[in-house]
Amino acid sequence: MASFAGPEIERLIGLLAKLPGMGPRSARRAALALLKRREQLLEPLAASLRETADKVRACSRCGAPDTRDPCAICADPARDGSLLCVVEEAGALWAMERAGGFRGRYHVLGGLLSALDGVGPEALRVGELVERAAAPEVSEVILALPATVDGQTTAHYLADRLAGAQVTISSLARGVPVGGELDWLDDGTIVQALRARRPA
Amino acid sequence: MASFAGPEIERLIGLLAKLPGMGPRSARRAALALLKRREQLLEPLAASLRETADKVRACSRCGAPDTRDPCAICADPARDGSLLCVVEEAGALWAMERAGGFRGRYHVLGGLLSALDGVGPEALRVGELVERAAAPEVSEVILALPATVDGQTTAHYLADRLAGAQVTISSLARGVPVGGELDWLDDGTIVQALRARRPA
Repeated sequence: MASFAGPEIERLIGLLAKLPGMGPRSARRAALALLKRREQLLEPLAASLRETADKVRACSRCGAPDTRDPCAICADPARDGSLLCVVEEAGALWAMERAGGFRGRYHVLGGLLSALDGVGPEALRVGELVERAAAPEVSEVILALPATVDGQTTAHYLADRLAGAQVTISSLARGVPVGGELDWLDDGTIVQALRARRPA
Repeated sequence: MASFAGPEIERLIGLLAKLPGMGPRSARRAALALLKRREQLLEPLAASLRETADKVRACSRCGAPDTRDPCAICADPARDGSLLCVVEEAGALWAMERAGGFRGRYHVLGGLLSALDGVGPEALRVGELVERAAAPEVSEVILALPATVDGQTTAHYLADRLAGAQVTISSLARGVPVGGELDWLDDGTIVQALRARRPA
């Protein structure tokens, strides 16, 4: 990109373009919006990013990003310490919390095993998980990993690694999503939903 | 949105969601990417926004955002001071510069007249334009405004206001865009391209 907008604005556009869902064009639009809404958007976002960079760290127990360590969920005595829910990333943790209904604690892996991307167990928080699962209060580890090849490979690997711990290992049910039309579902989901059919 | 991710991250997500092209879901993804790529993305973007907020100001002559005042284009002696190109926003200026071929100077209006949104001439840099157009070196004002109702209303209004100045007033040609298929063009463009037809 040419530098007619000055190196500072070009740098800002280049960084905004790296955000997921953004490209060079939308990054320019975002930079313009920031420059136009200086008090309402540019200043608050600059301050918020500074604060996030300075204060938010991965919880040393579960790996979720928080300003406190242990994080709010790990520190909450009302949470059920016998249930440990393993998620890929904090985004999945947030989705579970939005959905509600889970009152246990989490373990954020920080990614998935991937032969293609060269991600091995040592790059993930697997050792920490095995250690936490060995604690006497933990009775069940729920593998809430994506229903993708990497997600399922990771789930199998974790089930193996946790075989020695005195815990039940479970994973999220597969089936027709709420509001799901059979017409629009992939065959794999239909087959799995049929296999796991329940009395009505 | 619930506050399980902590107030700092929720604030960041809320601000990211205000960027054009972003919604609550993509803002969460962006926040996660920032937290995951702390050194490559979060720190540089925080610093870049801080720098932009501190250093970038509207050029006191043309209104374009720059760290210098007058801006790089206004200060460039190689630019043709007899041509003044009026644009809505800095984004249009950047587009003109990317396209190349224009060696004059710019005037950034800061918006368009809009009866619906209650934007009158006093909200735009119209007085400054009239003043600049009255300078003896200016011989032509090119109205490079969008081909929308508000854009054309603004162009008509500016042509009226500039009637007293000793300048030629022009606007960008209408016609078939490069690579444009007639099939996909709207009727208005085809009619205007036909009226403005040129010897082949």
